[in-house]
Amino acid sequence: MENHKAAAAAVAYRLLNQTKHKSNKILHQRRLIPNSTQLNPSSSTSGFTQASVPLNQFVASYRWDLRKSSLIHTHHRKFGSVASTIVERNPNFSTINHDDLIYFDKILGAKKVIQDPEELQTANTDWMHKYKGSSKLMLQPENTTELSQILDYCNSRRLAVVPQGGNTGLVGGSVPVFDEIIINTRRMNSVISFDQVSGVLVCEAGCILENLISFLDKKGFIMPLDLGAKGSCQIGGNISTNAGGLRLVRYGSLHGTVLGLEVVLANGSVIDMLGTLRKDNTGYDLKHLFIGSEGSLGIITKVSILTPPKLSSVNIAFLACEDYISCQKLLFQAKRRLGEILSAFEFLDSQAMNLVLHHLDGVRNPLPSSIYNFYVLIETTGSNESNDKATLEAFLLHAMENGLVSDGALAQDFSQASSFWHIREGIPEALQKAGAVYKYDLSLPVEKMYDLVEEMRTRLGAAANVVGYGHLGDGNLHLNVSARQYDDAILAQIEPFVYEWTSQHRGSISAEHGLGLMKAEKIYYSKSSETVQLMASVKKLLDPNGILNPYKVIPSSLVS
Amino acid sequence: MENHKAAAAAVAYRLLNQTKHKSNKILHQRRLIPNSTQLNPSSSTSGFTQASVPLNQFVASYRWDLRKSSLIHTHHRKFGSVASTIVERNPNFSTINHDDLIYFDKILGAKKVIQDPEELQTANTDWMHKYKGSSKLMLQPENTTELSQILDYCNSRRLAVVPQGGNTGLVGGSVPVFDEIIINTRRMNSVISFDQVSGVLVCEAGCILENLISFLDKKGFIMPLDLGAKGSCQIGGNISTNAGGLRLVRYGSLHGTVLGLEVVLANGSVIDMLGTLRKDNTGYDLKHLFIGSEGSLGIITKVSILTPPKLSSVNIAFLACEDYISCQKLLFQAKRRLGEILSAFEFLDSQAMNLVLHHLDGVRNPLPSSIYNFYVLIETTGSNESNDKATLEAFLLHAMENGLVSDGALAQDFSQASSFWHIREGIPEALQKAGAVYKYDLSLPVEKMYDLVEEMRTRLGAAANVVGYGHLGDGNLHLNVSARQYDDAILAQIEPFVYEWTSQHRGSISAEHGLGLMKAEKIYYSKSSETVQLMASVKKLLDPNGILNPYKVIPSSLVS
Repeated sequence: MENHKAAAAAVAYRLLNQTKHKSNKILHQRRLIPNSTQLNPSSSTSGFTQASVPLNQFVASYRWDLRKSSLIHTHHRKFGSVASTIVERNPNFSTINHDDLIYFDKILGAKKVIQDPEELQTANTDWMHKYKGSSKLMLQPENTTELSQILDYCNSRRLAVVPQGGNTGLVGGSVPVFDEIIINTRRMNSVISFDQVSGVLVCEAGCILENLISFLDKKGFIMPLDLGAKGSCQIGGNISTNAGGLRLVRYGSLHGTVLGLEVVLANGSVIDMLGTLRKDNTGYDLKHLFIGSEGSLGIITKVSILTPPKLSSVNIAFLACEDYISCQKLLFQAKRRLGEILSAFEFLDSQAMNLVLHHLDGVRNPLPSSIYNFYVLIETTGSNESNDKATLEAFLLHAMENGLVSDGALAQDFSQASSFWHIREGIPEALQKAGAVYKYDLSLPVEKMYDLVEEMRTRLGAAANVVGYGHLGDGNLHLNVSARQYDDAILAQIEPFVYEWTSQHRGSISAEHGLGLMKAEKIYYSKSSETVQLMASVKKLLDPNGILNPYKVIPSSLVS
Repeated sequence: MENHKAAAAAVAYRLLNQTKHKSNKILHQRRLIPNSTQLNPSSSTSGFTQASVPLNQFVASYRWDLRKSSLIHTHHRKFGSVASTIVERNPNFSTINHDDLIYFDKILGAKKVIQDPEELQTANTDWMHKYKGSSKLMLQPENTTELSQILDYCNSRRLAVVPQGGNTGLVGGSVPVFDEIIINTRRMNSVISFDQVSGVLVCEAGCILENLISFLDKKGFIMPLDLGAKGSCQIGGNISTNAGGLRLVRYGSLHGTVLGLEVVLANGSVIDMLGTLRKDNTGYDLKHLFIGSEGSLGIITKVSILTPPKLSSVNIAFLACEDYISCQKLLFQAKRRLGEILSAFEFLDSQAMNLVLHHLDGVRNPLPSSIYNFYVLIETTGSNESNDKATLEAFLLHAMENGLVSDGALAQDFSQASSFWHIREGIPEALQKAGAVYKYDLSLPVEKMYDLVEEMRTRLGAAANVVGYGHLGDGNLHLNVSARQYDDAILAQIEPFVYEWTSQHRGSISAEHGLGLMKAEKIYYSKSSETVQLMASVKKLLDPNGILNPYKVIPSSLVS
């Protein structure tokens, strides 16, 4: 999109719907004020959008007086949307003492040992202000050796730690639950090498995604993943959570694009798996253990990733469909007819569109002539501008002639492309502004996906506004229930129904956000008990004292 | 390629090299006799090409007399190209007795309990006739339950097993070393489901790759991997060895395309990870442990895999380059200019070309006017025939104008496309016919890759013919040393030099073939000792008695 070379004319090319519209209107598209209304979190938390009434407020209190070296706190915390879920602090963990601080000062230097209350408050709080820990110490190692020394020490002292990158996660995975030491990787932020022939980038884990995107842009390459949070999130955190995002439909998951990792285990061992080869069948490919395990098996310190060349032609279409079956058919056709140039296939329903139009300043409907039930955003990325545009136009005309698309607009320049994307990317912000919101990130078979939205609508009736949108090309639904305020009666209508329904349809209760603290106890909805047991065995093998990101990912009953 | 729609004219379109060639010759391309000269092994071993002098002949003898229930054998075997490598039979393993046979008969029925000497001889011998085990028992379970019962029993009895699919591996991974029970998955060969919308295929592990390709072809889809061995190899074996093959440059590795697995562990536990979702971040993605671990951690029983749509337009170009740097530059340009339609980028040197022309019947050089140092095969796959062809032609003309390509031919029909592919795919067969051959499958940085071939040529002088070819697009070199006969003096010039050189350049000593028995002890050339130690810990966790595919993948010193 960055390099969009379409004509600069600030008009949208309106698709001719010969059956429904006689006119070929020219629509003036709004120009986005760069970043000002984006959900993209800045690196300062103060700019973050906050839920007016946090959904899962911790009920525990927690006090700490370092001068007295005393620690007073409750030993369990009630959290989660289902009130019965309680986490106990693991009594095997030590608490930090004066000697620990002296040791960390010695190996890191004072500036990397953070005790400042303001900085800690930020680091203790997640992006949604939904989860809040009570850590009194953040360490910022500058390299693998320092991180290794920290973990070796913490492991021998039974001090629990939480690895933290950009802290943009949505399931409480990157903040402490109790007094875990925060290990922030922001100082490990160098690009180590880039190979123009192979496209392999090697960098440290703390590199911010957007910085890598900019770095590669100058070299004529792109990152294989792109997220709304790119301005803050770090590549190490992306890989630890197996982030999905907007380009997965084209470039696949990080399990395919990450070529190598360097990881530090709980005991401080450095595991060098930092290969840069596309093919390497010499034994178990253990790096995959660390992709998506949310920092609970080791901390990623270096990354080797295959980056695709930046192609010159990007086209965006914003389309309207009458019904969900048309969206599905359109996806099927797009995979076949756009095949190799398809780079995004996103959808939103009319409820999502209405929210964006009502709550975000300056957003205009690209297709204002009617209200449609569904909207689809299609992006193509290719190497031949005229061919790609012709292919997309032919596809769209065919789709309209076959009644799959009721109306549509093709972006004519970067500004219009951004404004189309902003509708899709602005939905979370609009939902936050609309009131209380219950958010679910689900993978489901595409043909079943919207049934859940409709069933939820039937269950909730007038009590709430049920909104469906997401990455249709990946089978990833973001189901959101918007209400005036949080209400246990509404919640009881949603959960556990939403998890049970997803499980019955062999879906995933976390498509791309991970389990973190929020869903650790709900894992059985998506994984067999044998698999979870095997997970716990692997955890025990790699982190016998359980110091790495405790209370997350694995049900507490399985971790001593 | 199957659906190649180019004009049926049986002529090759010769690229106009305006600087070097004035004429635009029309070349008549040979029509391939289907499969008759392919390396593709049939399901019967009798048709296999055999090395005239096996490289790594086992020196041990092994006798077995079931009637007397006695077992006489030597307890170690010398193997491998370096004579010092010796494998000892693990004395912790039991030997099969009469009660075992009764038990297996009872749970499987007699027809799935194979003791026929001829069938066993085939199953004991690898595709290259290089490794030969002495198993006296092959079991052919028909479903997961039967396999689970077998493993549960074998584990409790400490009976070692070797999982076997199509037995097409090249590193001795799929045949017994001593008397391990062969568990062949050929009876588990059903397609379970196929989803036309998502393209997700779910099938049993014993499905033959070519059968799956045919099944999908009728549905308008393709498998994301393709191999020379497709006529025999099974999808379970493909995944267990993380097979690479010809489409990796386009569709990526199996770590990206395999969505789910069902696996039976050594103790008989069935681990259901058979998801069908592109996105599922609910805990550790443990299926990756079983992709490429060569059956040493569990036996794959069911597979869920994402299959790409079959696109309508396939084009193949066969090109000549003067030097290796031109091949590299051509690859760089192809990635950028062909981008999304590039589906293969293979290369061979003049030595490989000469071998094919001399040893394979009916092969003709598509570019006979001169001898070139390098040949490149480029394949594009896309959805718009005229666009794709125009894009490829423009790319090729640009490459010729810039001196990267000296000559070239574009296939005009399926027959010509096949004949171009046959040159590349026929190299292993030609090498076998030429005499003794030392084969190495290496991943190297593309810019260094051919240096190794040249250094090897310098080392060996007139003693041998050094041949380089492979998947240039993936950085995968097949280095082959062809000699009149096997000779320890030649071998000493090759090894350990080839492994040391590869290791120094951070390459992989096994790009796509795996380690198997052949390279288990050589793992440290490509993996750090900490990583290998971690592998051994994972092996111990999942298979504490070490019954699964012993002597393979992990150095014997680490496995008790």
